[in-house]
Amino acid sequence: MPQSETPIRVLGVDPGLNITGYGVLEIGLAGPTLLEAGVVRGTARGSLTLRVQQIYRGLRDVITSLQPTTMAIEQLYSHYQRPKTAILMGHARGVICLAGAESNVPIMHYSATQIKKVLTGNGRAPKAQMQRAVQLELKLAALPDPPDVADALAVALCHHYLEPTRRVLAEARRE
Amino acid sequence: MPQSETPIRVLGVDPGLNITGYGVLEIGLAGPTLLEAGVVRGTARGSLTLRVQQIYRGLRDVITSLQPTTMAIEQLYSHYQRPKTAILMGHARGVICLAGAESNVPIMHYSATQIKKVLTGNGRAPKAQMQRAVQLELKLAALPDPPDVADALAVALCHHYLEPTRRVLAEARRE
Repeated sequence: MPQSETPIRVLGVDPGLNITGYGVLEIGLAGPTLLEAGVVRGTARGSLTLRVQQIYRGLRDVITSLQPTTMAIEQLYSHYQRPKTAILMGHARGVICLAGAESNVPIMHYSATQIKKVLTGNGRAPKAQMQRAVQLELKLAALPDPPDVADALAVALCHHYLEPTRRVLAEARRE
Repeated sequence: MPQSETPIRVLGVDPGLNITGYGVLEIGLAGPTLLEAGVVRGTARGSLTLRVQQIYRGLRDVITSLQPTTMAIEQLYSHYQRPKTAILMGHARGVICLAGAESNVPIMHYSATQIKKVLTGNGRAPKAQMQRAVQLELKLAALPDPPDVADALAVALCHHYLEPTRRVLAEARRE
């Protein structure tokens, strides 16, 4: 089976105004392997404008250097208690979607429940169980840390496992 | 009194995912005059990603063609009842702040109460009174329409009237 020239790479992103986690998986014949993961930081004391700019530029740099073929991000959350937190998260999420769009990387959205269910079988899995699942799937020597990186890798893995099903369903609808 | 070479131009923006209103005032010796106002539309049926990209690109185009020296925008609102609306507004607001930052236009934030108080003397002025105040200040033949444009012009006018006071206060603090 010949390998395609462009390797499939999934960029998972966990948006935050202070810390945005990211992780890129390369999907080979033996399954997904971790290419690179890390965080983009917004200056904690910077203005909101400065922070969205840092997140945007950081993500664009990640995309430019790692050349992902798809970006996966958690769906709109509406579980914030405080409207202010929800608005702030929206700022970060808006410029992250824009970074993907401006680099022509298609973006897929998955709900928190979907992500947890795909990785652990339990849509309400606690954080520690999710970190452990990510570690096992990617055969990492240690738990992914900080948690923002674990969350980014989790959504990338979720995309990897759901994508074939989505394609089959899309094909079926076309017939 | 010689006029400065770069005219002072204030871009007011009223963020929204469907319609983002904007208005640019030029500040001359006789006061502010309306240079241009309009709306940037996100495709109502487009994905969230497509819409943030349209807003971002539309605003960048406005900035490139009208060369504002400052951008004024309503402060983080926390008056949304539904967290989902708050998050969506955050997406729009995030890419609008980014459009200013990426074009090196400084951004000033004003609260809804400040804007209403400066224009009408009443921090809780209803929408119709605000539209009428904008019309009078700018000597417009008709009420500014749609309301998104009126709101954008209101925040630009608010900046124009508060800026001298802010500068004096900043000077005083420095002494």
